[in-house]
Amino acid sequence: MASKTIADELAKKQKEISVAEFFEKNKHILGFDNPSRSLLVCVKEAVDNSLDACEEANMLPDIAVEVRQVQGHEDEYTVLVEDNGPGIVKNQMGKVFGKLLYGSRFHAIRQSRGQQGIGISAAVMYGQISTGKATRILSKISPDEPAYDVELIIDTKKNEADVKKMEVILWEGKDHGTRVEITLIGKYKRGKASVYDYMKSTSIVNPHALFTLKEPDGTLNTFDRVADQMPKKCEEIKPHPLGIELGTFLNMCRSTQSYKLTSFLVNEFSRVSYRTARDITEAAGVSENMKPQDVTIEQARSMLEAIKNVKIMAPPTDCLSPIGDMLIRKGLRKEIDSKFCYTVTREPKVFGGTPFLVEAGLVYGGELDPQEPIRILRFANRVPLMFQQGGCAMTHAIEEMNWRNYGFEQPGGSGIPRGPAMVLVHIAATNVPFTSEAKEAVADVPELIGEVQNALKDCARRLKTHINKREKLTKVREKYDIIQKILPEIANKTAKMLNLPVPNIDNVITQIMNIIHVDSKVEYAKVNDQSVTSVEIWVTNYTPQERSMVLLCRVPDTLVAKASPTPSKIEGGFIHWDLKTLEPSKRIILRFDLMGLERGDYEDTELYYSRAKGEVVGADPA
Amino acid sequence: MASKTIADELAKKQKEISVAEFFEKNKHILGFDNPSRSLLVCVKEAVDNSLDACEEANMLPDIAVEVRQVQGHEDEYTVLVEDNGPGIVKNQMGKVFGKLLYGSRFHAIRQSRGQQGIGISAAVMYGQISTGKATRILSKISPDEPAYDVELIIDTKKNEADVKKMEVILWEGKDHGTRVEITLIGKYKRGKASVYDYMKSTSIVNPHALFTLKEPDGTLNTFDRVADQMPKKCEEIKPHPLGIELGTFLNMCRSTQSYKLTSFLVNEFSRVSYRTARDITEAAGVSENMKPQDVTIEQARSMLEAIKNVKIMAPPTDCLSPIGDMLIRKGLRKEIDSKFCYTVTREPKVFGGTPFLVEAGLVYGGELDPQEPIRILRFANRVPLMFQQGGCAMTHAIEEMNWRNYGFEQPGGSGIPRGPAMVLVHIAATNVPFTSEAKEAVADVPELIGEVQNALKDCARRLKTHINKREKLTKVREKYDIIQKILPEIANKTAKMLNLPVPNIDNVITQIMNIIHVDSKVEYAKVNDQSVTSVEIWVTNYTPQERSMVLLCRVPDTLVAKASPTPSKIEGGFIHWDLKTLEPSKRIILRFDLMGLERGDYEDTELYYSRAKGEVVGADPA
Repeated sequence: MASKTIADELAKKQKEISVAEFFEKNKHILGFDNPSRSLLVCVKEAVDNSLDACEEANMLPDIAVEVRQVQGHEDEYTVLVEDNGPGIVKNQMGKVFGKLLYGSRFHAIRQSRGQQGIGISAAVMYGQISTGKATRILSKISPDEPAYDVELIIDTKKNEADVKKMEVILWEGKDHGTRVEITLIGKYKRGKASVYDYMKSTSIVNPHALFTLKEPDGTLNTFDRVADQMPKKCEEIKPHPLGIELGTFLNMCRSTQSYKLTSFLVNEFSRVSYRTARDITEAAGVSENMKPQDVTIEQARSMLEAIKNVKIMAPPTDCLSPIGDMLIRKGLRKEIDSKFCYTVTREPKVFGGTPFLVEAGLVYGGELDPQEPIRILRFANRVPLMFQQGGCAMTHAIEEMNWRNYGFEQPGGSGIPRGPAMVLVHIAATNVPFTSEAKEAVADVPELIGEVQNALKDCARRLKTHINKREKLTKVREKYDIIQKILPEIANKTAKMLNLPVPNIDNVITQIMNIIHVDSKVEYAKVNDQSVTSVEIWVTNYTPQERSMVLLCRVPDTLVAKASPTPSKIEGGFIHWDLKTLEPSKRIILRFDLMGLERGDYEDTELYYSRAKGEVVGADPA
Repeated sequence: MASKTIADELAKKQKEISVAEFFEKNKHILGFDNPSRSLLVCVKEAVDNSLDACEEANMLPDIAVEVRQVQGHEDEYTVLVEDNGPGIVKNQMGKVFGKLLYGSRFHAIRQSRGQQGIGISAAVMYGQISTGKATRILSKISPDEPAYDVELIIDTKKNEADVKKMEVILWEGKDHGTRVEITLIGKYKRGKASVYDYMKSTSIVNPHALFTLKEPDGTLNTFDRVADQMPKKCEEIKPHPLGIELGTFLNMCRSTQSYKLTSFLVNEFSRVSYRTARDITEAAGVSENMKPQDVTIEQARSMLEAIKNVKIMAPPTDCLSPIGDMLIRKGLRKEIDSKFCYTVTREPKVFGGTPFLVEAGLVYGGELDPQEPIRILRFANRVPLMFQQGGCAMTHAIEEMNWRNYGFEQPGGSGIPRGPAMVLVHIAATNVPFTSEAKEAVADVPELIGEVQNALKDCARRLKTHINKREKLTKVREKYDIIQKILPEIANKTAKMLNLPVPNIDNVITQIMNIIHVDSKVEYAKVNDQSVTSVEIWVTNYTPQERSMVLLCRVPDTLVAKASPTPSKIEGGFIHWDLKTLEPSKRIILRFDLMGLERGDYEDTELYYSRAKGEVVGADPA
């Protein structure tokens, strides 16, 4: 008999590792690396699940969170999260809470907060590892059904729930919903990266949800619902062909039910019509009628190459849910008040077959310290990311841009710039490429980094224009103030000396100033319980000639009332006024009201002009 | 019949997700987020496996790496890695390469590079996803056995190997070993975070291995073996009790074979004697004779609390393998040449039951740019980390230290400091807590961050002392130069003028200088094919009194020869000389040779003194 080799000895040690065992040993991968973060991760997983479930069920979410300190143990807390969502059917409870890599959102191509089938089970596991205690779940799926009260732990060797208790109960006063109670070692704090901070940020980008947070000291915080409609539901889509991996494509070819290659392409991908499918097969040099199952590796490669070159529409937007201009401004304003705030929502793009879009906001000035690094607020799929900032692609995108072009300090042209600014970046995708299952940092996918930089450059460019405009307006104002002081004096004195009437010096002023001056004022008030934002725009012709111009003012997506004079049109997010004849030294005042905004939603006008001769100060060329 | 609720509808979408499917969709978690990184990850996983296998088999590793561009496809490469290790038995080949979460190192508590059972299977999967091509493996376990030539892919739905081909072959000229060939989409480059960079760093910290790298353009690089002994083997240990999780502890209690609590503690943990076990049970208020299986949650808690307070020895070092002073210096010298280099290896500590130790090195000066942020080289378990620097605990430790205390620029007292320095940090642990399965960034475990800061502070303190000493020596030299120029001139001229003999001005010099001056010189040479590092230390008494002192010189762990005068002892890494009588203006020259070092291993002396009166320049108080 052959003697045993070293390889035989080593082979004895080879073993299968259960997913639960793996994450039990490597819980830091899931975010449980220190007590205060662990507490927050637990709250986050439960709240994200509640939000996703309510949205799938088309119910306005009411989510109550409580963090309760366990008597006698200062590092032990119970996290209780209760929602009014659809509940979970009895025979799924064990799997949803007691099995890692089990879920409903992994296989669907649609934006959602949960995407891995890990989160809540990981929290259950961390609870039992750190305190030995089981997790309790209550679930009721309809007013006509009883509720189930379950206590379970995860058997990590088998990656299965070990149900310690299951009771049928009457959950009085509850029609439907889920309640989770997890006891874990944690640390409750306020301030940065805290449970309170997370809930506040989450409530801002989810205005349709009502949140309450009861803190360990008994303080009850309410984050009110401010919108009564559900956000537009994200539709599930088919994969987009651009950037799809070769192996994935081949798998799809092999397992499709379609008989013809073109039908396969049309049926299994989004944005592929028969026309497009034929363009692809033709460019790739393959027969459009061939059986997809017969496609070779080389043929697949040619098709993927063809897909890059054939014109295919960007993915539909209805699988994605951007936060939007208004809420991004709110998110930034929660941190700092400032007059300058610019936001941008980019068009959807694709990376590796995954549709995504980037939004960004930049706020400048106010009480921000010009010596400090700029603060960064990161969001992915409407969830605030509170950790691992240094490891996130959004941070890398910021570090690798040249901010000195926009007036920021950035020694060496790389790294986080310093200046009195804060940025918010949101990546929405049907599958966000996180660096780990903790879902706190986005991976360095080049298309993402590029789009984040594009979005921030949009904002920074506007900032630079705004700063230049402000400096220019300041100079103009100073010049004008001086003129306004001196000239009348000169006129008066000269007139007195010469014993002549005081001349009209308007002409002189217009000769010296020689600009069309545009200034504006915004006021917010509640009138008869209605929110009214009143805007006044002053256009003054400080030139010696009669002037005309078209003036545009950007308005948000809300009701515009009482615009006067009558605009030539209100279209595409702008009010257009056609100012036909403005005589020298004359001023025209344009007015309008915006209804239904909150204080601070609209603080500064964004003005553009076209078809004007001469220099315009206070508005940008359209 | 009850109508279907929303919960019932949602329940239909709930599905189990295979581990392979999960990582297929989330390959960026494994590090495959862009082509050049993917190529490097593939090389790294294969090389790490080869190193681990050779070490377990106690064989000096010969590892040949080739990166070959695939004809006709400029973004497609084949990575070939062949070792002379123990090989893999036939019926394990499919599992080792074709099944995620399968391995031999997950369950053992011992330092190793692989620890997850994922790495090489992930590379196989990435290969098939990106190119559609199978991975080829050759394996031979003994000269008397045939070799197997296997081609396989991973069936991601089942997380199992799908073997496309299996042949028995004669692997001529090969006694035993493994060869892996993976074809993937990648990008080959040189410079930072490249395959070459990784191999060079890996060869430095693994001097017992011979590496060759053949690049796509045909260039063959050899990284020679420089040590002929295997590094000390890491022993498997039992868990250390300090910081173990409550749930894990309870599981151990429940599943132990021991009948008594004290036996359980002694048998299942490292560093627990019967004495210690009784101290623990007594402090916890539990009976030492109770059955471990009966331990309640509260009792377990008390015991874990007691463990914190009872004196338990730090874990044994033999489960860990530090890189060591010499190789850390080499690692830093590969990047930059400089006279000042200080390294430290800290004592082992524990976090969460896991033994670990931290080593650090700091190099300063040379051609490093004082305006640039300091460069950071990170290692974990003797593997260089090339990505995700911003997300790593080692980086966070550096950012959160106050470097201004040590002469570096660091606005605001946080962030990566600027200065002409480079640091190397190595964390060795029986299970390194990475932030993700890509194993590139270490998680923010407080004990790790603290130890890294301690290690770097040790180095930085020595740097500050060195800088101060150098500045002082420079001042002394300037003063002495001036004195040496002027005084003799004055003496000569005066003597001439007065027509008297030139006086001896030594006394005057000693009165003015009034220091004991210590200077040194180090030279490296090859004498008869032997490496000899010669050191000369000059001690000069520039004071008016007779002096005595003990001088110490730090020496590395190598042969010290020809020390003269005879030292009083050579002990604890230092040569001690007892200098009894040194008269004013007299100098004594101390000499010794160090054998067996390479050029640059020992460049500068580290000198200390004790029992000296008066000011000593050029040595530090012991």
